Amino acid sequence: MNGYLISRRQMLKTSSGTIVAGGLIGSSYLSGHQKISQQEEAKDVIFRTTEPRNGEPELDRLVSSWQTPTELFYVRSHAPNPRIDPNQFRLKVEGLVRKPTIFSLDELRNLPAKSTTATLTCAGNRRSEYNGTEYENMPKVSGVQWQGGTIGNATWAGTLLADVLKQVEVKEGAKHVWFEGLDQVPKDGGIIAFGGSIPIEKAMLAHGAGAPLLTHTMNGAPLTPDHGYPLRMVVPGYIGARSVKWLGKIVVSDRPSPNHFVATAYKLVTSTDPLDWAESGPIYRYPINAAICTPKPNTRVTSGPVELTGYALPSGRSGSKIKDLLISADGGQTWTRGQLTGNSQEFCWQLWKASIAVKPGTQELLLRATDSSGGFMPARVPWNAKGYLRNSWYRLPLAVD
Amino acid sequence: MNGYLISRRQMLKTSSGTIVAGGLIGSSYLSGHQKISQQEEAKDVIFRTTEPRNGEPELDRLVSSWQTPTELFYVRSHAPNPRIDPNQFRLKVEGLVRKPTIFSLDELRNLPAKSTTATLTCAGNRRSEYNGTEYENMPKVSGVQWQGGTIGNATWAGTLLADVLKQVEVKEGAKHVWFEGLDQVPKDGGIIAFGGSIPIEKAMLAHGAGAPLLTHTMNGAPLTPDHGYPLRMVVPGYIGARSVKWLGKIVVSDRPSPNHFVATAYKLVTSTDPLDWAESGPIYRYPINAAICTPKPNTRVTSGPVELTGYALPSGRSGSKIKDLLISADGGQTWTRGQLTGNSQEFCWQLWKASIAVKPGTQELLLRATDSSGGFMPARVPWNAKGYLRNSWYRLPLAVD
Repeated sequence: MNGYLISRRQMLKTSSGTIVAGGLIGSSYLSGHQKISQQEEAKDVIFRTTEPRNGEPELDRLVSSWQTPTELFYVRSHAPNPRIDPNQFRLKVEGLVRKPTIFSLDELRNLPAKSTTATLTCAGNRRSEYNGTEYENMPKVSGVQWQGGTIGNATWAGTLLADVLKQVEVKEGAKHVWFEGLDQVPKDGGIIAFGGSIPIEKAMLAHGAGAPLLTHTMNGAPLTPDHGYPLRMVVPGYIGARSVKWLGKIVVSDRPSPNHFVATAYKLVTSTDPLDWAESGPIYRYPINAAICTPKPNTRVTSGPVELTGYALPSGRSGSKIKDLLISADGGQTWTRGQLTGNSQEFCWQLWKASIAVKPGTQELLLRATDSSGGFMPARVPWNAKGYLRNSWYRLPLAVD
Repeated sequence: MNGYLISRRQMLKTSSGTIVAGGLIGSSYLSGHQKISQQEEAKDVIFRTTEPRNGEPELDRLVSSWQTPTELFYVRSHAPNPRIDPNQFRLKVEGLVRKPTIFSLDELRNLPAKSTTATLTCAGNRRSEYNGTEYENMPKVSGVQWQGGTIGNATWAGTLLADVLKQVEVKEGAKHVWFEGLDQVPKDGGIIAFGGSIPIEKAMLAHGAGAPLLTHTMNGAPLTPDHGYPLRMVVPGYIGARSVKWLGKIVVSDRPSPNHFVATAYKLVTSTDPLDWAESGPIYRYPINAAICTPKPNTRVTSGPVELTGYALPSGRSGSKIKDLLISADGGQTWTRGQLTGNSQEFCWQLWKASIAVKPGTQELLLRATDSSGGFMPARVPWNAKGYLRNSWYRLPLAVD
């Protein structure tokens, strides 16, 4: 057990292909412990980058089912997938707790089992739209040029974070819970872990669909390496970045994590000025969003009704459901209601369909949605340097004969 | 000097009309040291509450000059004005500093003098509009029912906060600077100070119009009690709540202030659930905003051109200026450009005028503005429980003969 007392920072500095604290198997692929082939794990996702692995499915395939098959589920990573030996794996839980504890996977499995279905979505979903013609004079938004596919709805199983925190006995003064992945993200010439952080009020939720889980299972099968094998946080209602993959450490603290991905990235800023970062809080909850998934953009259709399908995600708030799903073929002067289809469940997306009349001259369809917690998609959202939270009206260009 | 070492909390508990630490003269009015009559200090403001004093001017008078006369400047208080003896007054500066220091007013005046013109605006400006017909099913927004008058542009003189912090030598690890007023705000059966907090990056600004000041002078005269006599923070670009009045204490810290007015109030939340507070960061910067100030709402006009005047405030960012000022008389289908008048200065409002053709049937005029930092007024803003940051299109109802 002594190995696990090596600090993560030391561990990262000293690891070189041998098995070390955390169960991380360095950077070489010692595949004896793992049978999953990285090539096959997300075979229906279009990878926009492969180092690290970042991919999203085609929208038409994405909405073919309410529960997203794992091979269609978007992949967002900041570093190569770490190769982790499940037998060596340990989760450290420390900080403002009475009983700092190191858990093996078996020890976590001995806690009460819990499963939930929840949608995850990347804060950068629809980012590529920031680089259209809307924001003249603004710099190009870099980062992975996501279309609307970095969203998926899966069933997750594991253990309540609240149950883990109960075991370690959180001390007074705890305000935030930090997560650290076992991935190794190059940053400013060094290596950092991908980190997340959530308020203690969220972390301690022990009931309801919004309660965060430590998960080992996705859609009934073990997590794949792309999705955080062997252990991933799932924080329903929050941007995907808070659902830290390859979870290796949990720290209870009196403040949000100072990790780059909490303190700097995943904020709505308009510059790289540290003042801008300091003035902006971390993004937790995702806002309402929606997209038209069929037909594809620029499809040639004939005058008359066009059949549409898509998804809509209510704001990540307890009890929030999609209320109105509205489509316009005349630039927003008149709106036609779409029909919600399939399951309607808090912290999950809502599929929908609609039939909209188009005529020669119709150049695009507009989509907007509202939810029961007061969320709505605005006509326009402010530009932000990192291209997050694009949830303005969704625009689908069409050619009508 | 020993008296000043009594902690503020102790001071508030023990004060009972005698002169105590901080220069606060309890709750009785020992007026020997002060000549200003509370009745006269904001004589052109309409007080919506008098205990505490909360008032705003009529909009037509507000825009009669770029620099707002003190007697027309909105008043926002959370407790009765404390009566402070300037000779007894002391400012304590402590926390993550090498040299905790207690300053008299004279000692502050010995630091380099600095003055700036900056607009202050209440986060609750235009709050009453949240209680219109727009948000069905949402609870009434309580709090002072502000119209568009809680904004004013004044010239402030005093000392750079950065110079004070330089004197006390800020330690490594400082991330935020807290402010505490000498007012006594009733809260949950006890008394708290009104508190503010700003990021260290803002606090340390030593150049430019965005640099925070400790001010003793407003528009060339000593601060009035309504505006924080004898010492007030002025934080250009931030909501008025951060420009703490009757400033008695500054604390340098590694985190934002836990004071109620930072940790809970002045956040965009949709409920009183602590999770909602925890998920929302403190509001610092104000967003772009604008109002039509003349004619008054529901004025009866004849068909033809109508002359309008008003204000527009660019986002509280360095270098941000009003770019477009647009008015519509047809519900937003077409927009006419207004003309910017008078001074155009960062962190200050912009006055404007316009001539708009109306015809029988015109029921309202719409106003929206954009600024050079990408800010724009949206058609609609999400409902929030405290009624902050109302900056959707400004609507002026008119009757056209």
